[in-house]
Amino acid sequence: MPPKKITRQNLRDAAEKYKNWGKWGANDEIGTLNYTSPEDIIAAARLVRKGKVISLALNFDHTGPQGAKSNYPAMGRTNPIHTMIRTGTDAYSGVLDKRGIRAADDMVTMPLQCGTQWDGLGHVFYEDRMWNGYDCREVTSAGAQKCGIEKTKNKMVGRGVFLDVAHVLGKDSLDDGYGITCADLDRTAHAQGVTLKRGDYIVVRTGQMERCLKAGSWDGYPGGDAPGFAFETLEWVARTQLAALASDTWGCEVRPNNTEDGINQPWHWITQSFGDQVNSQVRSGKADITRLRAVGRAGSRM
Amino acid sequence: MPPKKITRQNLRDAAEKYKNWGKWGANDEIGTLNYTSPEDIIAAARLVRKGKVISLALNFDHTGPQGAKSNYPAMGRTNPIHTMIRTGTDAYSGVLDKRGIRAADDMVTMPLQCGTQWDGLGHVFYEDRMWNGYDCREVTSAGAQKCGIEKTKNKMVGRGVFLDVAHVLGKDSLDDGYGITCADLDRTAHAQGVTLKRGDYIVVRTGQMERCLKAGSWDGYPGGDAPGFAFETLEWVARTQLAALASDTWGCEVRPNNTEDGINQPWHWITQSFGDQVNSQVRSGKADITRLRAVGRAGSRM
Amino acid sequence: MPPKKITRQNLRDAAEKYKNWGKWGANDEIGTLNYTSPEDIIAAARLVRKGKVISLALNFDHTGPQGAKSNYPAMGRTNPIHTMIRTGTDAYSGVLDKRGIRAADDMVTMPLQCGTQWDGLGHVFYEDRMWNGYDCREVTSAGAQKCGIEKTKNKMVGRGVFLDVAHVLGKDSLDDGYGITCADLDRTAHAQGVTLKRGDYIVVRTGQMERCLKAGSWDGYPGGDAPGFAFETLEWVARTQLAALASDTWGCEVRPNNTEDGINQPWHWITQSFGDQVNSQVRSGKADITRLRAVGRAGSRM
Amino acid sequence: MPPKKITRQNLRDAAEKYKNWGKWGANDEIGTLNYTSPEDIIAAARLVRKGKVISLALNFDHTGPQGAKSNYPAMGRTNPIHTMIRTGTDAYSGVLDKRGIRAADDMVTMPLQCGTQWDGLGHVFYEDRMWNGYDCREVTSAGAQKCGIEKTKNKMVGRGVFLDVAHVLGKDSLDDGYGITCADLDRTAHAQGVTLKRGDYIVVRTGQMERCLKAGSWDGYPGGDAPGFAFETLEWVARTQLAALASDTWGCEVRPNNTEDGINQPWHWITQSFGDQVNSQVRSGKADITRLRAVGRAGSRM
Repeated sequence: MPPKKITRQNLRDAAEKYKNWGKWGANDEIGTLNYTSPEDIIAAARLVRKGKVISLALNFDHTGPQGAKSNYPAMGRTNPIHTMIRTGTDAYSGVLDKRGIRAADDMVTMPLQCGTQWDGLGHVFYEDRMWNGYDCREVTSAGAQKCGIEKTKNKMVGRGVFLDVAHVLGKDSLDDGYGITCADLDRTAHAQGVTLKRGDYIVVRTGQMERCLKAGSWDGYPGGDAPGFAFETLEWVARTQLAALASDTWGCEVRPNNTEDGINQPWHWITQSFGDQVNSQVRSGKADITRLRAVGRAGSRM
Repeated sequence: MPPKKITRQNLRDAAEKYKNWGKWGANDEIGTLNYTSPEDIIAAARLVRKGKVISLALNFDHTGPQGAKSNYPAMGRTNPIHTMIRTGTDAYSGVLDKRGIRAADDMVTMPLQCGTQWDGLGHVFYEDRMWNGYDCREVTSAGAQKCGIEKTKNKMVGRGVFLDVAHVLGKDSLDDGYGITCADLDRTAHAQGVTLKRGDYIVVRTGQMERCLKAGSWDGYPGGDAPGFAFETLEWVARTQLAALASDTWGCEVRPNNTEDGINQPWHWITQSFGDQVNSQVRSGKADITRLRAVGRAGSRM
Repeated sequence: MPPKKITRQNLRDAAEKYKNWGKWGANDEIGTLNYTSPEDIIAAARLVRKGKVISLALNFDHTGPQGAKSNYPAMGRTNPIHTMIRTGTDAYSGVLDKRGIRAADDMVTMPLQCGTQWDGLGHVFYEDRMWNGYDCREVTSAGAQKCGIEKTKNKMVGRGVFLDVAHVLGKDSLDDGYGITCADLDRTAHAQGVTLKRGDYIVVRTGQMERCLKAGSWDGYPGGDAPGFAFETLEWVARTQLAALASDTWGCEVRPNNTEDGINQPWHWITQSFGDQVNSQVRSGKADITRLRAVGRAGSRM
Repeated sequence: MPPKKITRQNLRDAAEKYKNWGKWGANDEIGTLNYTSPEDIIAAARLVRKGKVISLALNFDHTGPQGAKSNYPAMGRTNPIHTMIRTGTDAYSGVLDKRGIRAADDMVTMPLQCGTQWDGLGHVFYEDRMWNGYDCREVTSAGAQKCGIEKTKNKMVGRGVFLDVAHVLGKDSLDDGYGITCADLDRTAHAQGVTLKRGDYIVVRTGQMERCLKAGSWDGYPGGDAPGFAFETLEWVARTQLAALASDTWGCEVRPNNTEDGINQPWHWITQSFGDQVNSQVRSGKADITRLRAVGRAGSRM
């Protein structure tokens, strides 16, 4: 018997259950990032053992996932377009010497969801509202007047926990369409000997990104079928009181979504509108990861 | 008697004296970032006392310093241009519902030196060469084939040291044209009770940025007169074996530069071509700063 | 006694009076461009006497009017940002030879109202409607689904008529705040010996642009005070059955607008929502002008 | 026996033979556009019979040829990226009313060779020179200091001649790799009853673009195999004294090029460096075409 489809009523029920608007005051714009306390940061810093730095980001360049084949193409996302304003070839040609210095300069044009990124809380709306009940009309063509990613600039530091679900389930990568359950996540933490704590930054590995990188093609990755969080994990997200959550897929949650017609990314509707930071397209290594970086910018979420 | 102007021969002498090409092998692309060891990172993490996170970056938005009046306008630098791909007003208007989710998305077009940034080692050339002797023609319109900032993505973590030179010299902000000396820097470290170590990330406060922010105008800031490092501090940079150096001005070094005709930013010629990471336009608070973040990207320095 | 302010009721009355939705069918997206018939084009071609071509456009470059001081700054308009993808200096440096050809390529990022342009009929809305009664929600972040400028690509050719109002009124340039009247326009046509005809493309010279170019500064031009059409000229626009109308100012109509609070550009509300093509920032020479060019693009008005 | 490959010596010989630097003075930047006289324009205008306007341009949108599969991908060319600065959905949401007018605005980011375009004479270099002998280092990252397309803004009007070579050769579209000969062109003109004249604007139809549009895919079009001018047609280009030449393919000349290693687009090397305007990616209808429009811009060739 196929699993029951997620309905609009399920969404309404989840919204009601996980709604935490007002939890950090009526003016809060950063949601669960509030869970991490200064003490948590001090404790996280004490965990550094190897002093090894690992970037979890894809490079921002023309080899990124945008433009690949997709059943659900994103509106208007392209890979970064990088152009030069001055070059070493200009220098070599002598045309810069009138300025008294030989230097290169460059420029980028990029959708802020083109690669590895954190979603600001102005990214997803539940009906006419975003996090903390702000009116969705606060996000206009002039940018996000509320809940822009720049509001997080003095946050986004804490203990990182890497959950290698694929590995614990005995797979190189989880299958597309596989919905990670609360039990899978708990089992992974247990197998790795990690106890999750309020305010953690959690990275979940499905292996999908490595599969694409190995295949040399992003076809199917952006907006396509993927392993990822089952709708039920909203309970786990709330229970663990995580600060932020990231994965190595396009959108964190399982795809296809198994929803009624007209509903796409139901888990994303709830997590983000109700205050959880979500990160996607994170490149996961298998090493110790104790630090996560966020790239903030003003005016909107990125 | 006015100080003697820096001549091309002075530049040649400094190049010869501070040249450290090959120090980390013929293929190195990150220069002094190599000074920071894993042990240094572990030790730096142990220093975290308050768990307070402080962003040193200006917001990337239209209020940045580009476009202000300048005696030496940069070629082609503008403030970031931020546009939306989907909005909350689209959501409110119902035009997104056919996609099954209400979400906002955005895009940025920005010169990578428009605000707070680290220079990649492909940014400045000494004659036809950049760091480690690479040919400047490695930086073409297609980007930096060598010494792009993406090469630093697993670096840029270490002990941060904040040197408030203005404060130690008894000023709100140093005067434009004031050249910070080696003695000023040593005196500041001493007054603050800090001993500089190999591999540190050093931020020097002149107060100029705060002066501009207070005045509500960037006029004169980008490319204009400024306090900053005197040419002689090349010796201090080499002696301290710092990993990277940042300041709250446009270009770190004192301006005007007091050079012969045809030479601009002589300190920058030497620091960068010979492997020192330089950061500018850093927003300095006066609080404890134990962490510095770099924003890396592929394809070129930023 | 100061002239009476234009009220919301005046706007409602004008809307009722000049409303011509449906005139060319329910599906029309080009409005008064329909006035020009093939016969008009044939006749216009017969008028060519000197074979002299005169561009009426400002160059699209960084010297344009955007960014100048303004009492009413436009949202997000900048001058064009031009960058190179390949250069002659790349060619000179030998880095292109592997492709077998030495060539330059370039790129532009520009707001489509940054310089001389025609407004598509999706540009201005009257309440929730645009030309022909289309819902304003047809212009989303994905572009203009109705009334985009690309709909005009097989139009925009006809007889050009140049009305030098400033000259006929004995001025180098009209004063800012001077409202051109129907009588001024009729007098100018008469003085020039021109009889306006249905389907004409009319360019009105105020001299303001030349004044700015002569002063070497655009301060006050974009969104500032200007000479231009008085609200009463809506009658003249309708009476002449012109195809399209252009001027050498930022927004064609007189500024300040002399309106009740909360109403800006009242003439523009009516002309565009009710089907008249409007062009601004046109560079006017004083020579014979018998041809006007429009720059069309797909996906939206420009 | 396969045709002989075009060698570097052939290129040198052609360069010598067709070189016309200095023909219109040492400061000329527009080349063969000089061939069209005012009298030619007057005569061309007299030819208008039907008053029908036909755009020959592809729309500038995301459905253009860039990004399609190609054996010879262009550096950095993408389809236009169109974003909105203000929208009708903003208007509907009421967020614009504080400005006193409801209006939409937009922005484009586009490589200037992304779609239908004229090449400026700064586009292709022969060794270290461009048209009229200008040093290729005049085209820097700051744009084309010589031979930018903006130099043509008072030109680009004349008699248009449409040569439907495919039709005259009895084909829907010429085969990829078919090199159009001088004889083919002469035969086509003869069959159509047209006598070519000095200063004409000539459009040659191969049918390739229609073939792609019919197939719904641009794969192979940008930089791929194509019908087009054989190298020998340099003689025809010179003999006819045309002002400008356009076709419905990516690069006008036949592909593959049948050249020695290291030489790509040999016909383009000669035509452009020696002053001929070349247009590509023109959409050809089969109707009467008596007018060609050029889109000019400042700062560089487009």
